[in-house]
Amino acid sequence: MNKMPRFAVVLSGCGRADGSEIHEAVTALLAIDRAGCTYQCFAPDKEQEVVINNLTSEKMEERRNVLVESARIARGDIKNLRELNPGEFDCIVFPGGLGAVLNWCDFAEKGINCTVDSSVSRVLEEAYARKVVIGAMCIAPVTVAKVLGKHGITLTIGNDKNVAKTIELTGAKHKDTPVAEACIDAKNRIVSTPAYMLAGRIGEVAAGAEAMVKAMVALAGR
Amino acid sequence: MNKMPRFAVVLSGCGRADGSEIHEAVTALLAIDRAGCTYQCFAPDKEQEVVINNLTSEKMEERRNVLVESARIARGDIKNLRELNPGEFDCIVFPGGLGAVLNWCDFAEKGINCTVDSSVSRVLEEAYARKVVIGAMCIAPVTVAKVLGKHGITLTIGNDKNVAKTIELTGAKHKDTPVAEACIDAKNRIVSTPAYMLAGRIGEVAAGAEAMVKAMVALAGR
Repeated sequence: MNKMPRFAVVLSGCGRADGSEIHEAVTALLAIDRAGCTYQCFAPDKEQEVVINNLTSEKMEERRNVLVESARIARGDIKNLRELNPGEFDCIVFPGGLGAVLNWCDFAEKGINCTVDSSVSRVLEEAYARKVVIGAMCIAPVTVAKVLGKHGITLTIGNDKNVAKTIELTGAKHKDTPVAEACIDAKNRIVSTPAYMLAGRIGEVAAGAEAMVKAMVALAGR
Repeated sequence: MNKMPRFAVVLSGCGRADGSEIHEAVTALLAIDRAGCTYQCFAPDKEQEVVINNLTSEKMEERRNVLVESARIARGDIKNLRELNPGEFDCIVFPGGLGAVLNWCDFAEKGINCTVDSSVSRVLEEAYARKVVIGAMCIAPVTVAKVLGKHGITLTIGNDKNVAKTIELTGAKHKDTPVAEACIDAKNRIVSTPAYMLAGRIGEVAAGAEAMVKAMVALAGR
């Protein structure tokens, strides 16, 4: 491989309670940069399912846009998810946060019978078909499993037995994984890490992000 | 010293254009955690001066609260800045982002004749008097200089000559500093780093945050 892998990072808003978990997104960006790779952020241009006050956890009577709020994490350098062509990237990362199950799909409300946003499912299907390496953190593997579980992929959301069982209803296999490690499905080119499903400190999230990115870079080179 | 330093981190919202710069805040939290120290986040409980669309840089007709939005970066674990007793901490970090000069003071509008929010100036004055180590990133040193410049402190905002000159009107001295390094005023126990005043990549911001935290831990031990 002549060039270092090019990463796309897909966001779901800005903040754990209604968007992308900020520490997970930022430690992923940092791990990508430190691995000598480049990244481009994307998010769906749609209204957030809900706006949550991240201090009180209460619902706010506001309306916010997923792409506009995700731009806070991306420092304005972000594109509409519809513009993401998986053929232009070697790796695609999906950080966690409840936005993954509120804005990418409605798993938070409907469980495994959820519907995945068409812009997200299109990217996952095309990435899988083109052998682009997919990375997912925290609760984001739920969305990945809903779309790609039919291929018998293996992934992790840490060690939560209920969520693990739910994921396996899609045909995916769940593997318990420690917080600082990555679950690597080399055959299907999917890497996942538990992040705040298990982490108690930001350093643990960063260690998991680094393990995930390292494994993704290795797979991209094959 | 028996214990590792306890850090307070003061936020000004969530997002570079109207609050705390997210990469700076998160890499500071990560550097603190990786140094083996603990942190508690704080922010002023007040309305944001303005809400900016971080995608288009345009003003939005919305009202948001600095403490509530800062809670997104702090994962809900954040307190009103009025509750910050500098005597309970060894170090206090002020990340950058335009919130530092919009919500902590009105420098963005009025320049060096700005007024600093009383909760912020109180913390800076008490921290200085108690020899708590103060850390500031990016544009945040402007607020620190406005309050503590009278003591002849030395700090950096990178190498921008206009901002440097403006800072020196307070009595502070400015020292040009490379992006991955920290400007250390050991006598006044103030450490600063340029972050996105100079950085082109998140890895540079993280390197500066690590240099800042390392210097703060060393000073706190003296």
